Amino acid sequence: MIDYDNISIDKRLGHELWYTENWTDNVRFTFRVKKTLFSARTKYQQMDIVDTFEFGKVLLLDGLVMVTEKDEWIYHEMICHPAVNYHPHPEKVLIIGGGDGGTVREFAKYDFIKKIDLVEIDAQVIEQCQKFFPQIASAYADPRVNIFTEDGITFIHHKHCEYDIVVIDSTDPFGPAEGLFTTQFYEHLNAILEDNGIFVAQAESMYFFPDVVTKMYQKIQAIFGNAFLYNSFIPTYPSGFWHFITAAKNGHPIADLAKNKKDPAGSI
Amino acid sequence: MIDYDNISIDKRLGHELWYTENWTDNVRFTFRVKKTLFSARTKYQQMDIVDTFEFGKVLLLDGLVMVTEKDEWIYHEMICHPAVNYHPHPEKVLIIGGGDGGTVREFAKYDFIKKIDLVEIDAQVIEQCQKFFPQIASAYADPRVNIFTEDGITFIHHKHCEYDIVVIDSTDPFGPAEGLFTTQFYEHLNAILEDNGIFVAQAESMYFFPDVVTKMYQKIQAIFGNAFLYNSFIPTYPSGFWHFITAAKNGHPIADLAKNKKDPAGSI
Repeated sequence: MIDYDNISIDKRLGHELWYTENWTDNVRFTFRVKKTLFSARTKYQQMDIVDTFEFGKVLLLDGLVMVTEKDEWIYHEMICHPAVNYHPHPEKVLIIGGGDGGTVREFAKYDFIKKIDLVEIDAQVIEQCQKFFPQIASAYADPRVNIFTEDGITFIHHKHCEYDIVVIDSTDPFGPAEGLFTTQFYEHLNAILEDNGIFVAQAESMYFFPDVVTKMYQKIQAIFGNAFLYNSFIPTYPSGFWHFITAAKNGHPIADLAKNKKDPAGSI
Repeated sequence: MIDYDNISIDKRLGHELWYTENWTDNVRFTFRVKKTLFSARTKYQQMDIVDTFEFGKVLLLDGLVMVTEKDEWIYHEMICHPAVNYHPHPEKVLIIGGGDGGTVREFAKYDFIKKIDLVEIDAQVIEQCQKFFPQIASAYADPRVNIFTEDGITFIHHKHCEYDIVVIDSTDPFGPAEGLFTTQFYEHLNAILEDNGIFVAQAESMYFFPDVVTKMYQKIQAIFGNAFLYNSFIPTYPSGFWHFITAAKNGHPIADLAKNKKDPAGSI
């Protein structure tokens, strides 16, 4: 079972199995595990799926909580719906990361979205989430969804003005996702956005990692000329206080939100 | 040192000292402690003050985090300022619990507040917080502040229409604070509110304790004829997603908020 950098899932207290995540060097989040359902070292990262008493099934990548059945909807709704409502006529979406399928599921709720490209570097994440989290990976069979199991950085390299919304649904800014937090990558994303394009990225936590959030914000602001931080409660992520950053290629996401408001059920 | 119901502060991992709070039977929050500054069994509860690496000094009552230097301001601002801004002319405030002094400090920021009565059952909490958290217990010397070290339930028993704002700044609904979560107590608080009076209470977390929040809301709604749930990030409370409930003796707190808006600096 797991014995990787940040976690010690095999710490038995009596006959109980507990998973412990180090939120910082001095703060830990611990929850009781029923059993480990899947554990493997993929080509890119340590991947584990555990069943828990409090949060249902939980996906761990490199020892960090990615999604839990109890609260994944918060993250996935918050990374999708604001962008759709900012953009006047979104049709083409690119998701980088997000192999669990939750972000795909949310975008697929809109009939007017015509194309959803998912670029996930790790094919194992897609495969195992379809098996263990069918309610999250529920839209992969949708004909509008195209799956690319490759590096997001190389995927976007020769594209230009193809997407209305690009989403960075990544792991943390170290390991396989490190390159997704660079100025160069944000520049490329800006370049592949159509005129009214909207950028969104998960943006860590200001409570424990203010430097990470601040640097990310400054880079995005410098490229797009605007950037907006928004947040949500995600109790199974460090501090429970989680951020997203959005930016518009043109226009102003917040000011344009009300006038472009849409419901997931219908068309524009 | 502490060896009380909910915590095991003496669990040493190597040469490190960690405090662990059981958020539920299956979820734990753990942080590293520099040293224990104070530990005593008072007449009412176990009281401990520890210095930590992440959160500064932390007050623990019956083994639960009450205030931390890092984020106490979130809770104390959120339990005070909405009520002040709902009420057209608040002058007289009653705080039940809140012996750390943080809520007193926030109300004392408004010049137009003429009287702040604090009813804290445990004199030790007031005394030790003045010693260890002087920046939180900073307004006790204010001549508008009156401290009553007695049970909130008996304190309000023979009062009638004396306060503009009443605040329940209590511990959780078991142990010494249990009586502060009853219909009978809410009825008494309604009776001691002046005509435009506003009620506020800390209201636990919907994420882990939905039944507690729901029952509390229903009781308050039944007594006042209205009740409003609002929330804030408090990462050191269970789930980080924390609630407050407010209600108005007459009128509508939310609808009246904008028209009664005030700044802490000035007068009405």
